[in-house]
Amino acid sequence: MAKALEGLTIIDLSHVLAAPFCTMILADLGADVIKVEPPIGDDSRAFGPFVAEKDDPAIKQSGYFISINRNKRSTCVNLKTDAGRAVLRDMITRADVVVENFRPDTMDKLGFGYEQLKAINPAIIYCSICGFGHDALPEYASTPAYDMVAQASSGLMSITGPIGGPPVRVGSSVGDIMAGHQGAIGILAALEYRRRTGKGQHIDISMVDGLVYTLENAIVRYTLEGAVPEPLGSSHPTITPFQGFEARDGKFVITPIGNDSLWVGFCKVLGREDLTNHELYKTNALRTKHRDTLIPIIASEMKKRDAADWIAALTAAGLPNSPINTIDQVVQDRNLLHRNMIVTVDQPRVGSVTMAGSPFRMSETPGTVHSPAPLLGEHTEEVLSGFLGYDDARIAELEAQGAVIPSR
Amino acid sequence: MAKALEGLTIIDLSHVLAAPFCTMILADLGADVIKVEPPIGDDSRAFGPFVAEKDDPAIKQSGYFISINRNKRSTCVNLKTDAGRAVLRDMITRADVVVENFRPDTMDKLGFGYEQLKAINPAIIYCSICGFGHDALPEYASTPAYDMVAQASSGLMSITGPIGGPPVRVGSSVGDIMAGHQGAIGILAALEYRRRTGKGQHIDISMVDGLVYTLENAIVRYTLEGAVPEPLGSSHPTITPFQGFEARDGKFVITPIGNDSLWVGFCKVLGREDLTNHELYKTNALRTKHRDTLIPIIASEMKKRDAADWIAALTAAGLPNSPINTIDQVVQDRNLLHRNMIVTVDQPRVGSVTMAGSPFRMSETPGTVHSPAPLLGEHTEEVLSGFLGYDDARIAELEAQGAVIPSR
Repeated sequence: MAKALEGLTIIDLSHVLAAPFCTMILADLGADVIKVEPPIGDDSRAFGPFVAEKDDPAIKQSGYFISINRNKRSTCVNLKTDAGRAVLRDMITRADVVVENFRPDTMDKLGFGYEQLKAINPAIIYCSICGFGHDALPEYASTPAYDMVAQASSGLMSITGPIGGPPVRVGSSVGDIMAGHQGAIGILAALEYRRRTGKGQHIDISMVDGLVYTLENAIVRYTLEGAVPEPLGSSHPTITPFQGFEARDGKFVITPIGNDSLWVGFCKVLGREDLTNHELYKTNALRTKHRDTLIPIIASEMKKRDAADWIAALTAAGLPNSPINTIDQVVQDRNLLHRNMIVTVDQPRVGSVTMAGSPFRMSETPGTVHSPAPLLGEHTEEVLSGFLGYDDARIAELEAQGAVIPSR
Repeated sequence: MAKALEGLTIIDLSHVLAAPFCTMILADLGADVIKVEPPIGDDSRAFGPFVAEKDDPAIKQSGYFISINRNKRSTCVNLKTDAGRAVLRDMITRADVVVENFRPDTMDKLGFGYEQLKAINPAIIYCSICGFGHDALPEYASTPAYDMVAQASSGLMSITGPIGGPPVRVGSSVGDIMAGHQGAIGILAALEYRRRTGKGQHIDISMVDGLVYTLENAIVRYTLEGAVPEPLGSSHPTITPFQGFEARDGKFVITPIGNDSLWVGFCKVLGREDLTNHELYKTNALRTKHRDTLIPIIASEMKKRDAADWIAALTAAGLPNSPINTIDQVVQDRNLLHRNMIVTVDQPRVGSVTMAGSPFRMSETPGTVHSPAPLLGEHTEEVLSGFLGYDDARIAELEAQGAVIPSR
């Protein structure tokens, strides 16, 4: 199958999650992503969960790293050496795109800031991802930007959590992940512009900006109506019942009953047709107004049958519903398997590792998981020889100097 | 300022959120997004919060619609008429991209499915967004896919919520929004492919797939370690203290104390240097193990000062921290204002509306909010005449037939 981004070369100086997610998206779509890792490797190689190597179980590989870095190549270059920096300069001269997620001043100090790289390769597209942006005000620029800082600072955490309860973090690092998507969009848009004009550019993605972009109606709710939006649990601000309920077996079912005709069917499935035309509950407006008395009634009915029974009954009646799937259910979900969204790679030295597939289901150029994650420096020699055209003697000399490090 | 996607024409048959978010991203980057709305308009024109028109306050515009549809043009076309369908066919013949988020069979029934459009324009890039995918298994395809269904079905909800408490929904519709980002990426990647080969294609984005892609380490945690991931509140599974605490004034502060040297500084700011080398708490591993006794101690200390005091003290000590900003704070945030992430448009007939800016901060072609949201059919005549080249007589005839509708 063809790849949408075949022929695109990305030099990937990223680590942990935000920028690695960005380059994963592009690698899934066929870009040649060449990671440039320091001798200790991407920090996330030290993040659990771990999986042991077969020949030497004392050596562990990071499941975290594997799942975010499939489809990429790895070179190991010591940027603390002059010769190592010269190798990186050569790579960038031949590349289309550079991606990094260091603190804003790190790449400048290394001699690889955008203005410096532009002098080497004016067509380079240079994508930076950080917490508050490369031009952040000083009091922001000094704050280390973990995902949780972005979730808290952006306002997303303030609207997520149980009703009346403390705000909670979204269970995955959406601050990093949203910025990773936005970096990929910026890079692809910059390619369009470069094709018309020949010009590269700098893309400055901020994790906080990225989440503010996704607050949906929260900003207009506040600015037009004045009330500060608060966490709503699993419920909807203006539709009732539109939330999760616990079934007899402790599993949860959501029932987004979006209008009054669905309500009629829902009361029937619930075995409570007495509620259908009840004067307190017969319209959505009334149900939302009297939520405090209605929800306990429904909750108590939902406790009478197992989740799977409810799902079957609601589906048979054409009513919207979903289990709140747990991760063990997700990895076995028939439709996700059918759509290749749960895939297994044969990871070198450890065997099968299961991870999410690519959501880019395109008829001519589908995103795919076509190779496992690289060992540290697995492709150092291949990239130096194939991509940079160095001969064996030169590569051996760079290795002897410790400027580049081949795979163990 | 130049626009990255200048010259790209998108016919936008989308409604509510997922696909409108996709076309907002592309419009922010300069694509010409032409909405094709039915006579009643995009459903979200009826979603609150509302803002009254100045000349006739009885007429309300939707703040929801305005904030997701800035930068677009609107035509109003009645696809139930033959002449209306012919107009749409003309538009698609001249367009680069079509975006839609109906149920999987709706566009086929209208005569505008991908195979049908491909016959009109083989180079067309056709992006569909729906809940479970266009080729979903029958029992999935029949479920109406609200954002909450995608959040519940994907497993994201199962890992979001207070510790030990019920799962909660992320406070914004990230199922729609993530799919919108992925649709934009798919479209831009398909443009790259088309430029090399001349071929268009169908992009089939599923909201559930899109969220499964963002579960981060949850899948490997389960498949490598066997434990089903659960909600963690605002805390981190393996780092302590790395969570939100309530201050004296009821506001929350997060303190991601990622390592033992930060712990030393944190104890000092907390005024509890007795904890620094405490045998139960001196290392991160110990702190995580004894989280149940440590967190109440910290929580009680944090109750002694206001949030702003803590933020100042933690920042002065170089320790990571953030307020859990509420939306009123977000819209006044100095760095977000500095980065144009909170912008105000002059919306026709209603005046100023505040919304999120564009996170695509690109040195040559920044994403911008350059025009307000369109009134229903505001650009019907302009598009028919300018884009399709129809003369006045033909436009008048189409209007007389009710095939197209000009702005009120």
